[in-house]
Amino acid sequence: MPELRKDPVIGRWVIISTERGKRPSDFEGLGKKRTGGFCPFCPGNEDQTPPEIMAIHPPKSPPDSPGWSLRVFPNKFPALMIEGNLNREGMGIFDKMNGIGAHEVIVETPDHNLDMADLEPSQIKDVLLVYRERALDLKKDPRFRYVLIFKNQGDLAGASLEHSHSQLIATPIVPKRVMEEIEGAKRYYEYKERCIFCDIIAQETRDQIRVVSENDEFLAIEPFAPRFPFETWIMPKAHQCSFDKIEDESAALLAGILKEVLAKICQGLNYPPYNFVVHTYPYVNHHEEEYHWHIEFMPRLTRVAGFEWGTGFYINPTPPEEAAAFLRGVEI
Amino acid sequence: MPELRKDPVIGRWVIISTERGKRPSDFEGLGKKRTGGFCPFCPGNEDQTPPEIMAIHPPKSPPDSPGWSLRVFPNKFPALMIEGNLNREGMGIFDKMNGIGAHEVIVETPDHNLDMADLEPSQIKDVLLVYRERALDLKKDPRFRYVLIFKNQGDLAGASLEHSHSQLIATPIVPKRVMEEIEGAKRYYEYKERCIFCDIIAQETRDQIRVVSENDEFLAIEPFAPRFPFETWIMPKAHQCSFDKIEDESAALLAGILKEVLAKICQGLNYPPYNFVVHTYPYVNHHEEEYHWHIEFMPRLTRVAGFEWGTGFYINPTPPEEAAAFLRGVEI
Repeated sequence: MPELRKDPVIGRWVIISTERGKRPSDFEGLGKKRTGGFCPFCPGNEDQTPPEIMAIHPPKSPPDSPGWSLRVFPNKFPALMIEGNLNREGMGIFDKMNGIGAHEVIVETPDHNLDMADLEPSQIKDVLLVYRERALDLKKDPRFRYVLIFKNQGDLAGASLEHSHSQLIATPIVPKRVMEEIEGAKRYYEYKERCIFCDIIAQETRDQIRVVSENDEFLAIEPFAPRFPFETWIMPKAHQCSFDKIEDESAALLAGILKEVLAKICQGLNYPPYNFVVHTYPYVNHHEEEYHWHIEFMPRLTRVAGFEWGTGFYINPTPPEEAAAFLRGVEI
Repeated sequence: MPELRKDPVIGRWVIISTERGKRPSDFEGLGKKRTGGFCPFCPGNEDQTPPEIMAIHPPKSPPDSPGWSLRVFPNKFPALMIEGNLNREGMGIFDKMNGIGAHEVIVETPDHNLDMADLEPSQIKDVLLVYRERALDLKKDPRFRYVLIFKNQGDLAGASLEHSHSQLIATPIVPKRVMEEIEGAKRYYEYKERCIFCDIIAQETRDQIRVVSENDEFLAIEPFAPRFPFETWIMPKAHQCSFDKIEDESAALLAGILKEVLAKICQGLNYPPYNFVVHTYPYVNHHEEEYHWHIEFMPRLTRVAGFEWGTGFYINPTPPEEAAAFLRGVEI
């Protein structure tokens, strides 16, 4: 019997469709193929990108030159533009504003052939600390209301270049999906005076059936109502509203569990395309007890079709309990 | 300068990202390829599907035998099951229920090689009237709260079989995405005492810049804040809350404009994969003045990536005004 499950935070229902049951071996993945060819993100091609915003490189080496281990620059084809004013206006019943924002690219490694899953934990820690630094910097701009940090890996997940990179987009509005999550968490807090994510962590730790991995500070689970097979969330065990408040030592532990999740998914599912997104709190000093930052990791193993577009609810052939058991068993 | 535009009904923002500007010729489409091989939807293979629910066939011909021009049967791998009770229950902080519902397949033509865009308007009218008949029938089941009618065309749009077909899923809850639309329309009605879709139709008819086509009863437009390039909505000009209230003569006019939109998109964009979804009102006799049914048609020309999953807002490289001008110019 298929099951309908409700995401307790945003109230989205999913269908866990066991009748269509897919086992991990039914998913194709894409294998780890690298096509090579000219890459603007490789060392030596720094002049093919806009000038760098920051980089981790040896002391005294000039900007925009080889030798870096990590590099951040504005997206050459930005979805939003950094210069200008918002100019909010109406057009009859419609509303619009200028597409002001920041759109940055974080190249995570100079090596074209490495996926994020292949990086050393110390290198992943550097990536996370750069996410934090860029988010804190962009938060100072009063035009921006939210900073989204995300990664697209693989063509089918929307990556237009294969060299491993993350992106950061600062937006002048708090996005609808983020607001829904915050409002869901707020409603729960008002009712129970507890953070819903803290309650999820407590229940999942007790049940263990959807836990993929944990360390001293972080828990990786398959959520109760996942949209996608092998959707995985990584959450700090202690309450913390914003990713940008993470301490250096915690970033090292987060790098460890993120690498573990990436490696298990890549090895267990033959390097599928994936997206991950950092979900964080948009505001400063404002009901920080109600929200709990986390990372949502989504391998792209199924296609989103008319049903999902029409209803906003998802059909997922893989129960999260099976996905968690499978991932716990992948040796890395 | 990119532009942020807000969907006036559900409040979703999109980025019309002119800097990444794609012209129609930049989209690949897939061409009209048919791979052949065994097809369970072809005449003669009726025993490969569950027994038919209804069919249009010559008088006195037996069910589940060739000769039909249109055939409806339960999905062999249903997302939801028709038999059983909902058994709503909690598991700690989580909520679930059995996956009860109906999942039907409507094979639109016996000819494996035809797309819906190739069918005669009279055949498309038959398809629309069968949608209506099945929706009215399933509405009688008190376990169901919504009937979603949709079509996935092409592998990349989620179709698992290439023989042209639509699907219908009856769900025991009103899906979140549908509720958002209804609530947005309701807020507007409460403020203005007018239907927001009727206001959109009035403004689009006056402006003409986003109109793709129209006839006596229907208007096809590119919406002001489209998520996807060449997203197209077809709306009845006169207020009507539910698709299942459509009259036979109106269905003929709807078939005409639907065929025109399908043919323009298929010919102009080289047969892209697409989804369309009928958006309709879930309730009987309940504030019918607030909602206005319509069809949302989405060619799948761009990939949805981490940004869209994280924010629920969309980056669309093609301004709807350009898309409308292009489609108006496609000769069919």
